[in-house]
Amino acid sequence: METIKTAVIGATGYTGLQLVELLDRHPEAEIAGVSSESAAGTSLRDQHPLAPDLTLIPAAEVPFREIDVVFLCLPHTQSAPVAGQALAAGCKVVDLSADLRLRTAESFEAWYHTAHPAPGLLPVPYGLPEVVGREPLMGADCIANPGCYATSILLALAPLARSGLILEGTPLIADCKSGVTGAGRKAKASLLFGEVHGNFYPYSIGRAHRHIGEVEQELAALGLAEGHLIFSPHLLPTDRGILSTIYVQVADQDGGMTALEEAYREELLVDVLPRGEIASLAHVVRTPRAVLSLTAAADSTLIIVSVLDNLMKGAASQAVQNFNLMVGLPETTGLIPATHLVQVP
Amino acid sequence: METIKTAVIGATGYTGLQLVELLDRHPEAEIAGVSSESAAGTSLRDQHPLAPDLTLIPAAEVPFREIDVVFLCLPHTQSAPVAGQALAAGCKVVDLSADLRLRTAESFEAWYHTAHPAPGLLPVPYGLPEVVGREPLMGADCIANPGCYATSILLALAPLARSGLILEGTPLIADCKSGVTGAGRKAKASLLFGEVHGNFYPYSIGRAHRHIGEVEQELAALGLAEGHLIFSPHLLPTDRGILSTIYVQVADQDGGMTALEEAYREELLVDVLPRGEIASLAHVVRTPRAVLSLTAAADSTLIIVSVLDNLMKGAASQAVQNFNLMVGLPETTGLIPATHLVQVP
Amino acid sequence: METIKTAVIGATGYTGLQLVELLDRHPEAEIAGVSSESAAGTSLRDQHPLAPDLTLIPAAEVPFREIDVVFLCLPHTQSAPVAGQALAAGCKVVDLSADLRLRTAESFEAWYHTAHPAPGLLPVPYGLPEVVGREPLMGADCIANPGCYATSILLALAPLARSGLILEGTPLIADCKSGVTGAGRKAKASLLFGEVHGNFYPYSIGRAHRHIGEVEQELAALGLAEGHLIFSPHLLPTDRGILSTIYVQVADQDGGMTALEEAYREELLVDVLPRGEIASLAHVVRTPRAVLSLTAAADSTLIIVSVLDNLMKGAASQAVQNFNLMVGLPETTGLIPATHLVQVP
Amino acid sequence: METIKTAVIGATGYTGLQLVELLDRHPEAEIAGVSSESAAGTSLRDQHPLAPDLTLIPAAEVPFREIDVVFLCLPHTQSAPVAGQALAAGCKVVDLSADLRLRTAESFEAWYHTAHPAPGLLPVPYGLPEVVGREPLMGADCIANPGCYATSILLALAPLARSGLILEGTPLIADCKSGVTGAGRKAKASLLFGEVHGNFYPYSIGRAHRHIGEVEQELAALGLAEGHLIFSPHLLPTDRGILSTIYVQVADQDGGMTALEEAYREELLVDVLPRGEIASLAHVVRTPRAVLSLTAAADSTLIIVSVLDNLMKGAASQAVQNFNLMVGLPETTGLIPATHLVQVP
Repeated sequence: METIKTAVIGATGYTGLQLVELLDRHPEAEIAGVSSESAAGTSLRDQHPLAPDLTLIPAAEVPFREIDVVFLCLPHTQSAPVAGQALAAGCKVVDLSADLRLRTAESFEAWYHTAHPAPGLLPVPYGLPEVVGREPLMGADCIANPGCYATSILLALAPLARSGLILEGTPLIADCKSGVTGAGRKAKASLLFGEVHGNFYPYSIGRAHRHIGEVEQELAALGLAEGHLIFSPHLLPTDRGILSTIYVQVADQDGGMTALEEAYREELLVDVLPRGEIASLAHVVRTPRAVLSLTAAADSTLIIVSVLDNLMKGAASQAVQNFNLMVGLPETTGLIPATHLVQVP
Repeated sequence: METIKTAVIGATGYTGLQLVELLDRHPEAEIAGVSSESAAGTSLRDQHPLAPDLTLIPAAEVPFREIDVVFLCLPHTQSAPVAGQALAAGCKVVDLSADLRLRTAESFEAWYHTAHPAPGLLPVPYGLPEVVGREPLMGADCIANPGCYATSILLALAPLARSGLILEGTPLIADCKSGVTGAGRKAKASLLFGEVHGNFYPYSIGRAHRHIGEVEQELAALGLAEGHLIFSPHLLPTDRGILSTIYVQVADQDGGMTALEEAYREELLVDVLPRGEIASLAHVVRTPRAVLSLTAAADSTLIIVSVLDNLMKGAASQAVQNFNLMVGLPETTGLIPATHLVQVP
Repeated sequence: METIKTAVIGATGYTGLQLVELLDRHPEAEIAGVSSESAAGTSLRDQHPLAPDLTLIPAAEVPFREIDVVFLCLPHTQSAPVAGQALAAGCKVVDLSADLRLRTAESFEAWYHTAHPAPGLLPVPYGLPEVVGREPLMGADCIANPGCYATSILLALAPLARSGLILEGTPLIADCKSGVTGAGRKAKASLLFGEVHGNFYPYSIGRAHRHIGEVEQELAALGLAEGHLIFSPHLLPTDRGILSTIYVQVADQDGGMTALEEAYREELLVDVLPRGEIASLAHVVRTPRAVLSLTAAADSTLIIVSVLDNLMKGAASQAVQNFNLMVGLPETTGLIPATHLVQVP
Repeated sequence: METIKTAVIGATGYTGLQLVELLDRHPEAEIAGVSSESAAGTSLRDQHPLAPDLTLIPAAEVPFREIDVVFLCLPHTQSAPVAGQALAAGCKVVDLSADLRLRTAESFEAWYHTAHPAPGLLPVPYGLPEVVGREPLMGADCIANPGCYATSILLALAPLARSGLILEGTPLIADCKSGVTGAGRKAKASLLFGEVHGNFYPYSIGRAHRHIGEVEQELAALGLAEGHLIFSPHLLPTDRGILSTIYVQVADQDGGMTALEEAYREELLVDVLPRGEIASLAHVVRTPRAVLSLTAAADSTLIIVSVLDNLMKGAASQAVQNFNLMVGLPETTGLIPATHLVQVP
């Protein structure tokens, strides 16, 4: 059987590097191109000593006609136009940017405060298999890979939304903490080691962060009214991992917990811990899985702790799940052994 | 004028060491004794290379009759009996343990699941000057120094409780993150560098953590019903600092913010940031102050970010505030210059 | 083909956990037993959320007669007696402790200041395949797995010792820095996060550290006089990795570099970087390889930077190399894919 | 008595911020101006929440005629021209850049590979009081503040150079490790938290680093031949502190140790630990002092561990020492209480 030819556009960021690592050991994929504008002409290994020795080329030189599936790891507004070119060349696309996650250009503009760069491509299936199901993703030509925070929050809230147990008019509070690779690999003074070490703080709290748009869109599809999500991202002094502590008021705490347990009972990459245990970053860092833990608290509140690795289930390994579904491979191909990559410590 | 003779019982933990540092440069205090059972006979400098070279003695050998004020940095249940001895010897006491924070032995037993070691000492004024006022603390013989998390949460909630704006029956959610010195200096495997580095997790979430008792006691005194606080402490991979992200539903968001701004307008050690700014650990680490920031969110929710240094305003510098009030000194004596000790980074 | 039955004695330390991870995904090995005295009766997963769910038993209950190869991850003096029992039961042994590394009981006693617990087992082949060659290790019944620092230093110095280029009478300076997992997983106050974070220091410097014994023993076998190694270990505020900066005065700097390049040209798990590049922990953390870089400096000095992951090439993955040689498998079985496990970051 | 008017040119880097903090609490100094080109018009507090609320202005607008002493925290080649302007306006100068450290333009050009920007200003006294003595610094109009690594190495080697005990023709090996603030506050991808966390590596090793020039210049003045210093800087995953492990071959180990002990016996800001103790970053971080520890090793080698805070004794507090000497104040004015600022932890 022939391997599937892939390319990674924007390979030098944290997500791109992680994705190249995964594709490099994927048994059915071959990396036929890696792109970067600023580092074109150099080796990807110059970006990290363990990266494969592949020469970076500008995106415009990637031969989409010879590629089966392209992964886009570009900033928003830059990604969709490249998606359009790739699709036109007959290439399938997994877009890891935010460009194609919202179903309408209006939604995009409401949350990103800029015109949508390629509205003709919308809508595109939202690639969170454990929430939207496999049907829209299997064989798709183009998939919008979810945001890292959005994945973490949706895995916790979708089964509750579907259950109808969430008390109407109550706030959904997602207090999320992310390692710094979630902020990307661009040189910014605020992300220097000297600024982050010993520090910790929230940012864009309340109704400000752009991931609210995609979370509420997907929850609305499950019947939950928009406008109630309060989202407080925080920057953690560590490299990888998102831990979301989520507070929801439900009509039936036990029923809510059961809904979550049932939702993921058959899932290979989303685990719900036995009641009484609590999720930690150590459950997921450098693995493709997400883990949830459940605690009942006062005033009908259910606390869901939802953890994942922002570069894996929050980005690159989820992209590989979507890739596998796109091309008809078992969804966890190239991922499951990684579950065993115990991180000690 | 004569200096005030002090002693620190339990000087080798993080709180004890921090307190010794503060007393050592306090212009009116003198350290007349430092105690440790396990390290008796050695120098405090063996505990930290910058600690003063004072010989540790067992608590039983501290001459309380010659001491004016003793600070107790002992585990709960061990502290109150020593407080009793010191008081009997005519010595004033600032107790940094949990023993004297709850007004009744019943409350203590409900939260600490053990008999109170010295119920005859109760009640004792709760030493959070910006919340309880100075009146009960000025000249007091014995003060219970608040818990670090409790200080952080009470500074955020007390003005709202007093305002009557909190919506009845809604949960008060305190999602708190603390640096590891908050867990003490005992050798525990879970606190090894190899376990904490790269990790992050909540513990004792919901209604389980013991600081809920003292927070609800103080809020009840301001008219707020008990039972609604949901408290999720998390362990941060840094040494110092607590950041609490607190979600409260209020009848009037602007009124709630104004209540907080008014409450601390004249305070020297509690600052409320201008609206639009967000508090970070960098605002407070290694300083005696607490800082709050305020954000309005959906569904009548007010988000208060409350930060302090767990070893300073969360323990030792608050103990010095209480000491100053006890002995009739200006409350910030020995503390204010430290506000200027910029931590860069 | 039948899998090879293995057991890990002392599975709850960092080395034990890492070894279990490697054996768990080794294609020819099966884990038939994991032991711990203090945690007997509980699951290994209680030690780390990603560890396999295996029940720990006391070492005395491990059925050595049914095990093919046992790995000993025990403190020195406790390990050799268990090695004796296992060998008597017909089981092969890879001993990761220091007990069997020195060829004579006298040497052991000189460096460890205690009687050797099982002198009858000595000598045992020293399991550093790239230095001692495969001949003594292939099919061996018992192998002494080298120390982490020792591996790092020997990989740098052995080819130079063999070359005869080291200037007689000059000191060999090994300035080594290790992540904290090198110090083990016992609860010690000095290894608490609060003590290590923001700190850095050397310990046991000069001629004091016990790894000098095994390094000089192996270098003496290659013709280098003992007594000249100066070894300064330092504790790094990170979890994994050793970086040794080694200074040697040689008769011919280019010749020395060539000797190192030649020595490892065919090795799969030891790389020498092109001249001009410099090794970093990022080259090796979470991989089974060691990497060296070479720089000529003043006064005939050659600087060799030698890096490895203390839990992998410094302990567990080297043990798997030795296991593979013992049982007749290709040396890198179960290890090479891990080279591809890019750590980004 | 009137306060001395100071200005800090380049106030937004780590050194500038630290210096502003020190001057802000200096009892005899007043900050009359802080400059930044990129942040002109904003408050220094925007750079760090604990910095004083001073408005930044461009350097060209600082009124040197009204300033008594100006501190230059600018990149090399940009600093000397400003020094010239300030001196011409009758203002004294402490230059924290490298521009004025080397006595001749030729030396500067040899190490910095660019033309000296203001050769007419050379030579200028080198501001390391404990090495060059106070005589050249007292009342000086312009002082070149030493480099951080250079200070650390010179404090260890100067007394030995003066003693004549260093064995001729042997290398002087300085294996130095610095926290990341030593690399400055410019946004560089290599200094991102995600790149530094969990990593460690040397750079510019051998005879490449520019601080060798000033170290050998000062040692030559004490009679030691140039060309033997081997200097290996490493980047530590922490914010502050330099620890240098220095290896020197001496004719008399005890004599060498005594020379060091004698040299600093009367110094207030340089301590030599009792033999047997070992220096750590914890001895010096956030203090104005340097600490040395001494260990005899094989082959006539003396190991000196030299520690300091790169932003304090390695930059800003040393600049304040020089300022005090310049204006006739006791050398430790504004610094000594900081010695008491115990860092726990």
